Amino acid sequence: RGALPGPPPARAMPRATMYGRYTQDLGSFAKDEAARLRLQEGDTPRPRRPSELLEYTQGRCAPCRVCALQCQRFLISKVGEDWVFLILLGLVMALVSWAMDFAIATCLQAQKWMYGGLDTNVLLQYMAWVTYPTVLITFSAGFTQILAPQAVGSGIPEMKTILRGVVLKEYLTLKTFVAKVIGLTCALGSGMPLGKEGPFVHIASMCAALLSRFLSLFGGFYENEARNIEMLAAACAVGVGCCFAAPIGGVLFSIEVTSTFFAVRNYWRGFFAATFSAFIFRVLAVWNKDEETITALFKTRFRLDFPFDLQELPAFAVIGIASGFGGALFVYLNRKIVQFMRRQKTINRFLMKKRLLFPALVTLIISTLTFPPGFGQFMAGQLTQKDTLVTLFDNQTWAKQGISDEFEYLGILEAWHHPRSNVFITLVVFILMKFWMSALATTIPVPCGAFMPVFVIGAAFGRLVGESMAAWFPDGIHTDSNIYRIVPGGYAVVGAAALSGAVTHTVSTAVIVFELTGQISHILPVMIAVILANAVAQSLQPSLYDSIIRIKKLPYLPELGWGHHEKYNVRVEDIMVRDIHYVTLNCKYRDLQQVLHSTKMKNLPLVESSMILLGSIERTQVGALLSSQLSPQRRLLTLRQKVLSEDGHRLSDSSIRFQVRSVTVLGDAWSGSHPTAPQVSLHVAPRPPCAPTTDTSSPPAVGSADHSGIALKSLFCANAATELRVRRMGRPLLALVGRPYTLPCPMAPPQILEWEEQQLDQVADFSSAKIDPAPFQLVEHTSLHKTHTIFSLLGLDHAFVTSIGRLVGMVTLKELRKAIEGSLTGKGVKVRPPLASFRDSTASTTEADTTALHQLWDRHQHHHMPREAGPGGDDDDDTPKGQ
Amino acid sequence: RGALPGPPPARAMPRATMYGRYTQDLGSFAKDEAARLRLQEGDTPRPRRPSELLEYTQGRCAPCRVCALQCQRFLISKVGEDWVFLILLGLVMALVSWAMDFAIATCLQAQKWMYGGLDTNVLLQYMAWVTYPTVLITFSAGFTQILAPQAVGSGIPEMKTILRGVVLKEYLTLKTFVAKVIGLTCALGSGMPLGKEGPFVHIASMCAALLSRFLSLFGGFYENEARNIEMLAAACAVGVGCCFAAPIGGVLFSIEVTSTFFAVRNYWRGFFAATFSAFIFRVLAVWNKDEETITALFKTRFRLDFPFDLQELPAFAVIGIASGFGGALFVYLNRKIVQFMRRQKTINRFLMKKRLLFPALVTLIISTLTFPPGFGQFMAGQLTQKDTLVTLFDNQTWAKQGISDEFEYLGILEAWHHPRSNVFITLVVFILMKFWMSALATTIPVPCGAFMPVFVIGAAFGRLVGESMAAWFPDGIHTDSNIYRIVPGGYAVVGAAALSGAVTHTVSTAVIVFELTGQISHILPVMIAVILANAVAQSLQPSLYDSIIRIKKLPYLPELGWGHHEKYNVRVEDIMVRDIHYVTLNCKYRDLQQVLHSTKMKNLPLVESSMILLGSIERTQVGALLSSQLSPQRRLLTLRQKVLSEDGHRLSDSSIRFQVRSVTVLGDAWSGSHPTAPQVSLHVAPRPPCAPTTDTSSPPAVGSADHSGIALKSLFCANAATELRVRRMGRPLLALVGRPYTLPCPMAPPQILEWEEQQLDQVADFSSAKIDPAPFQLVEHTSLHKTHTIFSLLGLDHAFVTSIGRLVGMVTLKELRKAIEGSLTGKGVKVRPPLASFRDSTASTTEADTTALHQLWDRHQHHHMPREAGPGGDDDDDTPKGQ
Repeated sequence: RGALPGPPPARAMPRATMYGRYTQDLGSFAKDEAARLRLQEGDTPRPRRPSELLEYTQGRCAPCRVCALQCQRFLISKVGEDWVFLILLGLVMALVSWAMDFAIATCLQAQKWMYGGLDTNVLLQYMAWVTYPTVLITFSAGFTQILAPQAVGSGIPEMKTILRGVVLKEYLTLKTFVAKVIGLTCALGSGMPLGKEGPFVHIASMCAALLSRFLSLFGGFYENEARNIEMLAAACAVGVGCCFAAPIGGVLFSIEVTSTFFAVRNYWRGFFAATFSAFIFRVLAVWNKDEETITALFKTRFRLDFPFDLQELPAFAVIGIASGFGGALFVYLNRKIVQFMRRQKTINRFLMKKRLLFPALVTLIISTLTFPPGFGQFMAGQLTQKDTLVTLFDNQTWAKQGISDEFEYLGILEAWHHPRSNVFITLVVFILMKFWMSALATTIPVPCGAFMPVFVIGAAFGRLVGESMAAWFPDGIHTDSNIYRIVPGGYAVVGAAALSGAVTHTVSTAVIVFELTGQISHILPVMIAVILANAVAQSLQPSLYDSIIRIKKLPYLPELGWGHHEKYNVRVEDIMVRDIHYVTLNCKYRDLQQVLHSTKMKNLPLVESSMILLGSIERTQVGALLSSQLSPQRRLLTLRQKVLSEDGHRLSDSSIRFQVRSVTVLGDAWSGSHPTAPQVSLHVAPRPPCAPTTDTSSPPAVGSADHSGIALKSLFCANAATELRVRRMGRPLLALVGRPYTLPCPMAPPQILEWEEQQLDQVADFSSAKIDPAPFQLVEHTSLHKTHTIFSLLGLDHAFVTSIGRLVGMVTLKELRKAIEGSLTGKGVKVRPPLASFRDSTASTTEADTTALHQLWDRHQHHHMPREAGPGGDDDDDTPKGQ
Repeated sequence: RGALPGPPPARAMPRATMYGRYTQDLGSFAKDEAARLRLQEGDTPRPRRPSELLEYTQGRCAPCRVCALQCQRFLISKVGEDWVFLILLGLVMALVSWAMDFAIATCLQAQKWMYGGLDTNVLLQYMAWVTYPTVLITFSAGFTQILAPQAVGSGIPEMKTILRGVVLKEYLTLKTFVAKVIGLTCALGSGMPLGKEGPFVHIASMCAALLSRFLSLFGGFYENEARNIEMLAAACAVGVGCCFAAPIGGVLFSIEVTSTFFAVRNYWRGFFAATFSAFIFRVLAVWNKDEETITALFKTRFRLDFPFDLQELPAFAVIGIASGFGGALFVYLNRKIVQFMRRQKTINRFLMKKRLLFPALVTLIISTLTFPPGFGQFMAGQLTQKDTLVTLFDNQTWAKQGISDEFEYLGILEAWHHPRSNVFITLVVFILMKFWMSALATTIPVPCGAFMPVFVIGAAFGRLVGESMAAWFPDGIHTDSNIYRIVPGGYAVVGAAALSGAVTHTVSTAVIVFELTGQISHILPVMIAVILANAVAQSLQPSLYDSIIRIKKLPYLPELGWGHHEKYNVRVEDIMVRDIHYVTLNCKYRDLQQVLHSTKMKNLPLVESSMILLGSIERTQVGALLSSQLSPQRRLLTLRQKVLSEDGHRLSDSSIRFQVRSVTVLGDAWSGSHPTAPQVSLHVAPRPPCAPTTDTSSPPAVGSADHSGIALKSLFCANAATELRVRRMGRPLLALVGRPYTLPCPMAPPQILEWEEQQLDQVADFSSAKIDPAPFQLVEHTSLHKTHTIFSLLGLDHAFVTSIGRLVGMVTLKELRKAIEGSLTGKGVKVRPPLASFRDSTASTTEADTTALHQLWDRHQHHHMPREAGPGGDDDDDTPKGQ
């Protein structure tokens, strides 16, 4: 233990005082804040109002006025209640959903009308058919790109990340909301195979965030972060719920795709808001005379008495398994397209210049292929997504006795009929073409989801199987008294649920399907197919949303696979980083500097001399401590004090002179962060600190001029990346470092260096730093399973490993991710779940040193094997500690 | 800070060594264990088998044998997979459920047959009608009482507690399983208004526990606690799922009633097992020719095209709100009956003697009232629960134009028809009578649930509203081209979901209802009613299960109410206990003794000299340390060493003599735990320690004889309650204290006392104690909301509050519970949620010092108000610390 760098164990009094002060500071700050909020809410409910009321109720009696005032206060206090918020959210989202549906329907109608009106000339028809969606998609892509690039894509992956506690900038703003709503309307109006469900989750979340900011004008309740997260979770449910008019399925789906652990107390919030939203959404349809009463969106009318025969279940199981493979293939294809577009440098460079070319090109190809008089006639190209679903869920059997011609195709069903082919060929072509089209179309940079396209493909696949079964058993399988024919529409329902379940890795698509069709008679086939599809898809590929999370490199924590019992046997000590850098309580500033140099961790553990963990301190705080220690202000103060002690009576003059000069040099900015500088050693040759450096390739300095010390400067030069990261967190480090005014340097560089060296040798004073007094701790024998649970429950991104209070290691999201995904862990130990080889898709598993699981097992069997010793205290395991 | 008792800050080496050793010990133990399990599983898969196989495959070729062996190994390894377990569980539970349903149906059939066969004599008929259920219920009560009293009641409250991590003894054993299955069958066969759903959750959990113990014979995977908890969660879903053939509703219901936080990764487990189970359950019915194909249990045939009119929604909302009040009333009534029975001492004493009298009496009353030729004719008394539901969900309207006589009652519907009254009166009587009957019947000590009875009452109430609506609007409300009559059956469905949702505080009853009826057309009315019912019921009463938890005094954590934003403003420092007792690392044994005397906490914080929290140590461990320090063995050793130093050559003789004598006194047990002893002071007058004390009213000692020291004995006398608690934890304290053999006391009592005093003055050595190296820590400004989240997430029952590593307080489940339920918190500070006054039902809120919330708010506004200082370090808040 003597190897550990650490000051003597005696603890001086001032530092102990600091603890008290810090606690006090934060505690009282929190109290002040709470008191302020309460004051805002309770005592001053918009103080202007009483006088306003006075004008209105001049002639009335006083009690009436008092009553009105109280009513008003009551109402304002009610604004803070959850249910008011949820009702407002549901209402707004229902209106948005309905209005968008209306606009999309109008767009599609317009295309149909154009196409129908030009039926004299096929070329003109083709031009109209192709140009219309291309223009819409290009507009959508351009609009989103200009207004808010964050609006691109589904939004579910981002919401999953946000609900883990990560703050994604600009994701929940009004600008993004507008971009997403308009972009999505245009994208869906084009008739491309895109969905509205993922974006709706995002739209609902933005709506909740905006609503909460708006309502916080009336009271302070909406400023609590925990509450906002709860409301976002409810908003996700609302998004799905009002998109499909499926409240229950919406809640469950949103839980499955966005959460790892779900608080049951948030459950009713989702139900409440989603039900209200779905209700309003459907009531709007009734009021608009679209429907006679509230019904399901894609109502089916299968027979109730004998929905399916027991012997049909194997067919449903086949649908489930095939959908599982299909879903995994879809995710794989989607990812490969994105990766291909990124990797091809020439294509990429070209596309980056002409950003709108890719969307236009894809739209052109897809709409050309679906052109009804062309290839589209073989794949029901003229049907919109909605019409396709309605026809696929149709109650009748299209192919009787295997010959499609016997059936009278009516209305929109006609699209599936082709004089020179049969319905099986049409369905197969439809499935194959739509499959790659959907995978391609969802990579276009417009707001769009993939749920609906996948749902349609699944329905078509189910229909195909159902029609085959109907052709195979023309009079049904059941051979008792009654003849129950096979219902291919039921197969379509099963297929839709199974494929969408496989792509999203959810079971709740089953519930969505029931709510969409308004019939629950096929519950068992649907459940069986969905579960089988999930089992297959989950063992082959991550879900579409997880795949996007990885592509976009968002912070994430993979799910623990199921059935891998070895997860219970891997422990924190196998995966933790032992070689961690820490800050000792009574270290010197030089040590702080060294730590900042040697590590890039965002949070540094603060330990006592005997490695007892006291808390954690942010990297920025350490930087701030250092810079305040080396600040020119302090330097000047020292100087002044020195001067003062030499010459006492010149105090007032000198201070005035300093102030005057500080104004004159205000524009003299030092842009010291040098992103391309190589690793600079600790003691650089001093540069003239007063003149602005010629290097201006770095982004212009933060607006505040600054004269940090030389040693500090070298620190930031070496860690430019860190500084950038810090700045991305919305807290520019340099702004923390100095005051907004600047002082000239009355010392020569060598003097400064000497002074700084002196300063660095002082013992650090943490009294002004913010310390997290209870960072999360694990112990060495915590299992991987439990660690994963805790990380996902509490949304941690790091935890310290302690052993009876002593810091022995650290686990971050990265180690955990690697351990779960099966690449390296700890020092020389690798864990790899059996099915991981199928999932080696992203960059995180490219390390060459991946070895099989049995290595770990071998190691465990001789667990006294010595391990390499890191400097951070990893000799604790096999030898008793001694100090 | 000088007031704090604490040794000098220097830390000696041996103690530091101890840390390392302990960590090492536990770590290597865990590794050994894991290695052992792996060896068991991987290398020695039942080594006998190869030879067995050899006999069978004597004549065959070697590769074939190897292949078979590998297959077998593969299969055995597969036994460890989750899905095998879940399929087995689903299968077993489906069989159990079906067999029980069959047995119950037979029982009910028998009663009907008896009743029908004796229709010549009303008295005989009455005797048969009354005796049959009385005998069955009495048998059920007696059988359960004798075999396993844990089988009594619903089981959901206990499962909720178990899933929180509390170990309830004997709850998941084979004996309880048998008692519950047989008891439940008899109870339900009696025709009393009891349900099978709650007990099924319990049965499924026991089944999972037993299955997991059985399968652990094949491998070690089933010995992991985390996994077992996951499997129990899945089992709860299976229980509900196979009871109602409702897989989705089952999963959701079980989540809602048993979990606070739910891991989405367990979700599919529940779905998988519940679907499989429901499937098998319904397939058994098909195979038994009860059904033609798989359908819902209570299939409805409402029209699909126009299920309800928009204008009917207010009626559904009324059902919801009324059900909310009704549900709260039911819970209240149920609890009051239990409390009344307990409080009436004379009744209670009488009933305790004749345990079977209460069930018999209740059954007698209820069956007398339902006797069909008697009062039963006004409340459809002859219908079983299942028949009642079938009739209530009936498609036809019973009361046309307000006159019931117009309708032709057919089949079992006839029961609702009475020549001299109309259907409204029958329904009202049915609802009123069944309401109190169900509330009463569910208090009988037999295995029974309350879900089904409540469901039936709700359906009747819905039917009543529906019939009223049908009478009010004979041609429906919708006045367009088509006439859509009102469907009273739909109202019954809504009512059933709403009332059962209100009683259980769940939303998923909506889903259960859809799955039970096989129709989802009424989704919006059902959702609206269920949500309204929940909102009303949750603000009035706890759920039935929470109510039972409180009655049974199981450890629980109440839910955070919704909409109480002040939860976000209450912080740990407001509710924590500041006056805590702790163990200092270098304290003396006397201090340990004092701590044990002065507190009853199960876990004591172990702090360093400067109050830095190092870990927590169990009370039993401290006791063990003390007793080993004062043990007669040590005393003898000291004596021997003293003797030795005086007289070196008698070593071998004396050791032999000790061994011989130790055998002779083996039966000489000291039963020192004295439950009625008053608080004994630290230095008691010495009693003769060798002779067995005459006080034998305490339970007989743990089987191991013991001669603890006098000081120690006084300790245990004072803390008999603690010891009992400890023993309940399955770890008898006294067994830990001494070795199983006993030595005579060669010292006189005064000498012993002197020796013990000497021993107590030594510095404690924790090297042999087990220390929890990372107890959960909170900080002072953690919000109540977050604390609640963490407690329920991690299943904590206590957490230490630290401030930069220093212990400042402690929060236990009790404080948290009080803070949430609104009684006292902290020192003189009280929080009380607005609606709490309605919920003052149990003993926990009887403190008189409950004051309103604004007191806390006032206090926060002048937050520098001084607080009383406890000895445990609560001077940290307002004054800077100094040492």
